[in-house]
Amino acid sequence: MESNIIFLPIALAILGIIFMIVKANWVKKQSAGSERMQSISKSIKEGALAFLNAEYRLLLIFVVLASIALYGVSYAVESTSWMIIPAFIIGAVFSALAGNIGMRIATEANARTAEAAKTSLPKALKVSFSGGTVMGLGVAGLAVLGLSLLFLLFLSQFITDTGTFYTDMTIVLETLAGFSLGAESIALFARVGGGIYTKAADVGADLVGKVEAGIPEDDPRNPATIADNVGDNVGDVAGMGADLFGSYVATVLAAMVLGNYLIRDMSGDTPFTDAFNNMGPILLPLVIAGVGILASIIGTFLVSIKSNDAKESKVQAALDRGNWVAIFLTLIASWFLIEWMLPQTMQMQFFGEGIKEIPSINVFWAAVIGLAVGALISVVTAHYTSLGKKPVLNIVKNSSTGAATNIIAGLAVGMKSTFLSVLLFAAAIYGSYEFAGFYGVALAASAMMATTAMQLAIDAFGPIADNAGGVAEMSELPNEVRERTDILDSVGNTTAAVGKGFAIASAALTALALFAAYVTFTGIDGINIFKADVLAALFVGGMIPVIFSALAMESVGKAAMEMVQEVRRQFKEIPGIMEGTATPEYAKCVDISTKAALREMILPGLITIISPIIVGLIFGAEPLGGYMAGVCVSGVMWAIFQNNAGGAWDNAKKSFEAGVEINGQMTYKGSDAHKAAVTGDTVGDPFKDTSGPSMNILIKLTCLVGLVIAPILGNHSSDIEVGVILDKNESTIVQKEMVNKEDVSENENSTTSIYEIKKNEEVVFQNKKEQNR
Amino acid sequence: MESNIIFLPIALAILGIIFMIVKANWVKKQSAGSERMQSISKSIKEGALAFLNAEYRLLLIFVVLASIALYGVSYAVESTSWMIIPAFIIGAVFSALAGNIGMRIATEANARTAEAAKTSLPKALKVSFSGGTVMGLGVAGLAVLGLSLLFLLFLSQFITDTGTFYTDMTIVLETLAGFSLGAESIALFARVGGGIYTKAADVGADLVGKVEAGIPEDDPRNPATIADNVGDNVGDVAGMGADLFGSYVATVLAAMVLGNYLIRDMSGDTPFTDAFNNMGPILLPLVIAGVGILASIIGTFLVSIKSNDAKESKVQAALDRGNWVAIFLTLIASWFLIEWMLPQTMQMQFFGEGIKEIPSINVFWAAVIGLAVGALISVVTAHYTSLGKKPVLNIVKNSSTGAATNIIAGLAVGMKSTFLSVLLFAAAIYGSYEFAGFYGVALAASAMMATTAMQLAIDAFGPIADNAGGVAEMSELPNEVRERTDILDSVGNTTAAVGKGFAIASAALTALALFAAYVTFTGIDGINIFKADVLAALFVGGMIPVIFSALAMESVGKAAMEMVQEVRRQFKEIPGIMEGTATPEYAKCVDISTKAALREMILPGLITIISPIIVGLIFGAEPLGGYMAGVCVSGVMWAIFQNNAGGAWDNAKKSFEAGVEINGQMTYKGSDAHKAAVTGDTVGDPFKDTSGPSMNILIKLTCLVGLVIAPILGNHSSDIEVGVILDKNESTIVQKEMVNKEDVSENENSTTSIYEIKKNEEVVFQNKKEQNR
Repeated sequence: MESNIIFLPIALAILGIIFMIVKANWVKKQSAGSERMQSISKSIKEGALAFLNAEYRLLLIFVVLASIALYGVSYAVESTSWMIIPAFIIGAVFSALAGNIGMRIATEANARTAEAAKTSLPKALKVSFSGGTVMGLGVAGLAVLGLSLLFLLFLSQFITDTGTFYTDMTIVLETLAGFSLGAESIALFARVGGGIYTKAADVGADLVGKVEAGIPEDDPRNPATIADNVGDNVGDVAGMGADLFGSYVATVLAAMVLGNYLIRDMSGDTPFTDAFNNMGPILLPLVIAGVGILASIIGTFLVSIKSNDAKESKVQAALDRGNWVAIFLTLIASWFLIEWMLPQTMQMQFFGEGIKEIPSINVFWAAVIGLAVGALISVVTAHYTSLGKKPVLNIVKNSSTGAATNIIAGLAVGMKSTFLSVLLFAAAIYGSYEFAGFYGVALAASAMMATTAMQLAIDAFGPIADNAGGVAEMSELPNEVRERTDILDSVGNTTAAVGKGFAIASAALTALALFAAYVTFTGIDGINIFKADVLAALFVGGMIPVIFSALAMESVGKAAMEMVQEVRRQFKEIPGIMEGTATPEYAKCVDISTKAALREMILPGLITIISPIIVGLIFGAEPLGGYMAGVCVSGVMWAIFQNNAGGAWDNAKKSFEAGVEINGQMTYKGSDAHKAAVTGDTVGDPFKDTSGPSMNILIKLTCLVGLVIAPILGNHSSDIEVGVILDKNESTIVQKEMVNKEDVSENENSTTSIYEIKKNEEVVFQNKKEQNR
Repeated sequence: MESNIIFLPIALAILGIIFMIVKANWVKKQSAGSERMQSISKSIKEGALAFLNAEYRLLLIFVVLASIALYGVSYAVESTSWMIIPAFIIGAVFSALAGNIGMRIATEANARTAEAAKTSLPKALKVSFSGGTVMGLGVAGLAVLGLSLLFLLFLSQFITDTGTFYTDMTIVLETLAGFSLGAESIALFARVGGGIYTKAADVGADLVGKVEAGIPEDDPRNPATIADNVGDNVGDVAGMGADLFGSYVATVLAAMVLGNYLIRDMSGDTPFTDAFNNMGPILLPLVIAGVGILASIIGTFLVSIKSNDAKESKVQAALDRGNWVAIFLTLIASWFLIEWMLPQTMQMQFFGEGIKEIPSINVFWAAVIGLAVGALISVVTAHYTSLGKKPVLNIVKNSSTGAATNIIAGLAVGMKSTFLSVLLFAAAIYGSYEFAGFYGVALAASAMMATTAMQLAIDAFGPIADNAGGVAEMSELPNEVRERTDILDSVGNTTAAVGKGFAIASAALTALALFAAYVTFTGIDGINIFKADVLAALFVGGMIPVIFSALAMESVGKAAMEMVQEVRRQFKEIPGIMEGTATPEYAKCVDISTKAALREMILPGLITIISPIIVGLIFGAEPLGGYMAGVCVSGVMWAIFQNNAGGAWDNAKKSFEAGVEINGQMTYKGSDAHKAAVTGDTVGDPFKDTSGPSMNILIKLTCLVGLVIAPILGNHSSDIEVGVILDKNESTIVQKEMVNKEDVSENENSTTSIYEIKKNEEVVFQNKKEQNR
């Protein structure tokens, strides 16, 4: 059993995929409703597929160019195999596939959810959540399957009898990093492209349709309405699918790399051995991921409601039930797995503190910290973005004095929400590290991500319900149908915001684990920001998320303007469009969004990928480390700020739909305060759906690029000079040690000089001259 | 001559103060106009004085509490003298005095500028710029005088014959840091309090007056109009004066501290000696500052125009002429001073690279880099915020589709402006460090700040002109008067934005120099973000500027709402107010702003001061270093973002006043697009006048607090363990050196062991266990 443990995640991944196929078939068997509904659903599907295909064509060019670059890396660096190229391509294809599966099922499930909503709310939830489940299991199944199979393949290729296990394994994992790099690169483009698409269509449709023409959302007379619904699928579904696929893979990979370091630390005089082919710590994250799939499947069975009169809270409770059961099952399983797969006591290298003895249970506590912090960050996020809570009510109140005060209040809410989130996050870093070093940090992130399948099922059901509402509106179904889908949609908004809090927390922890892996890969002795070049790079890195967000927001603005012009043109030039006697040219709007999204996603994507390469190649490994830290710190801040400000504005606007009390007066939709709130929501749209969620990928991709080019930057020759003066009030001695490359390899000639330093000084200095070879 | 060089800056500072008094008397001798003008001017002055007095009373409590805390520090730490307390108090008093001088002259100059504008534009410029000059020279003179005299005093106290010069000087400079800490603390409260005051009054006055009642700006019927004009004086004048006083002192201090390190580096076998009492490198920054005052005085003579029909560009050119002449004179003088005061070749400790030989001319090049980068950042800032440039025009264009797109465009402009600014700034760090280490970085900042007197004269003339316009409007002077003051005001807006770019660049470089001083003070061997606690602190530090900005913005929002209620009440309850037959209750509005500003400034101020103390005391010196770096990186980003977004929104709104072409159509004031632009401007107000400019002080104060508590955190005992493996492809040797405290002090027993590590590994590790004693 133990030596074949790698087949367990493979089996569980296949189980997940089989369950996914069963669910998908069940969804497809449901009635898709009237011909009109089917035709609308078909238009959305075609538009979405057209975009994805165009996107894939463009990304093909990127994949080819990146493959050539990777070939250069593998050519230049001995320890990088050419196999990183197929790994990269497979990662890219799997990521695209994950988005595609989600998008296809979502476009099947939308009309069927609307049709089911004719019967009852429980039925509608079942259909929409089944759609989400298909996507969640598709993403998780593909991720675990791809990682496991490639890992097996590379094991057979690179583990030799002549080399040390640690070094061979480093090559295995570095090659596997190609898979993650491919996944994350595609995720970035998919997230940014999809985000621009969906918000351009949304803002464009709203500005002319709702505001200028005064027709309701999703009205079939609005030429941009199909594009708007396509956007939900390519942005919120396909983009998110690729995003979480990338996150999941990166997290597991980082934990595996750190598992390898753990094995190195434990290989003192004798090599590390265990029953799991001597690689228990490396396999553990994969196995936990596999078990997470099983736990998620079990959790999905608990997501159902009975009453047709259920409100948002009941639906939310059903989702929470499934989620928490999946989490607890994973946690319990993790306890057993950790006890089973790790040695009782481990020797772990703590930076600056030497080797420590760590009981394996500490790894479990690190995982618990990960889950606890993830849950608490979700609570904080919910507080700052939920209907009826103080922050949202404050925005509502500030809407009564106009758009300006609404905007100021919303910005302030987003900024304030960083406070607790960052403190929690810092506690997670600190706590999980204290328990089990960077391996603990990586396991904390893995624990957060283990139930990705369930998390994604919950996230993806929202856009499906949103789309179902669109189909219902466009097909002019009875009001009660729309009311039911609105309940699901509203719950979906909350789960979306909470999911984003979770995503940024796990992304940041993953980035940290990747960062640790990077430092060890390059062989530098830390990232010292007291060096001017490292500090300069820290500033440059801190600027990247800001400029990335700016570009993404501008792109949305630009694309939305084009959409506005086109919709205005159609209203003016197509007679009978407002009376409903003529059909608008939906395809033209779809086309505008598609072209704009593809055009605008390129620059931010390239900045993300190329900047770390430039910094690394010109300034070296340590400045690149500073750059990575800058991207992470600033990226986390801007992600939380943008996601939560956007979420809060959205719900402040929604508050007016049910009516809200401002200064003792009930205020409703259509009031001046509501109009101010709509302005805030429009500003928040690109925040929360384009630039904000891209920050996760930006952070992880930056660290992954660093990791892949790390071997080029490493291999420094060193001149080390160390001096210590320990007591400041008496005349003491400095011990100075010069170590030159030649000295060491010849094992002689090391020059040691001792000299006296004057009283009262207290200096600890260390010089290390590094030259790239 | 050489040995009495310290008296040169003292003499120049006194010269500056004499010139200031002459100028102030000249201004006061000008006619203050009609009785109505004088009465308005008096109301503004009284309101401003009332606020400042209330502020000082509140800050007195803070000063007392902080003094007690400092007493604790000086009690606990041997190397900190109790004299840090009077230094702190003098710093606080001088800072308040600097703001007070500026505020008094500004409230004298406003009516006189309006009166002068009756005659001609050149006369109006002369009066308003003279007012600015008084403030500039007051700030610079007090700063140089205070620093020099205290330095002299502490020299006489602490330089002994028994101790080493370096250690004694460390105590001198650490005590002098108290002066800077006092100045910067008061600056923070003055900036935040003034910023909240001015924007609460401004937003409140505009929202009800301009938007609801439809009366022009500064209309005497608006009850908030006096408060609005008071705000210009307490925020833009007194707040800015205290701010720049603090910056100036901190910059010179940081350079002096690093000069002391330079002397230590040059004291190898024999102590460093030179003709300047062996402290040339320490005195150089003081002397350059003194010379900068002289250069600024010369520069002020060049600021004048001849033609009464001059437009903005002519006025701008006159200011630029004076500014550039002052800068070039300072630069030329610096060349001579550096050649004279520094040894031809210096031994400088480069972190990680050991001692390098640096020719003194390199210090000059570092100063040139500082000035060049400062100038370039001003150009970048001007590009992003000036009328008629692409970014502002883009916001204008986006105003045509409503407030939401205006806001998105403005946010994007602010975010995009970080790109070049940060790259330039990183280049400044990198370049000045490469030339002359951290001493070079400090001198680059000193060079930027040397012409503070001139810079501040240019900055302060803006609000005076703005106020003059207010007096003209309220006194119902002829239109041409307002037109002339408007020209000055408009130029003032540009110089304000550019001044902010300069301020953040110099603040960041100063922070860096303080950071370097901190690391050396504490005796840690760098700030390694690969340690989990340091990285966690980096994140927490990165969050502080965000939460600070959020609190400041919320405060403005809250205070503005109170103002709105009060103005609405007066319009409703005082009969005849709109017809001009009844006088509004100005004092009530002044009171609201005053109370709100004082109440709201406390929390952000305390967070700034207390957070680094908590981080340092609980987690130690290195995490506090990470925290400081986080504050700097994030603070620079948010400062640039907020200042430039605010400036761009302001000018986008102004564009409509002259009329602007959107999509081929001329659009003017009163259009829907203009209304959207007003919304953007209102959002931008707290950005650019409250939270944005506070970031400078936040950054510097954080580093200063760190510096002052550094001795408590330092004095670690160390276990150092170093290992190097240099060649990964062959079997190599690890050199391992254990140094324990006992070993060193006994000068024996140091254990050295060499052992073999397996092939293909490449590790450089270093362990250092630190325990606070």
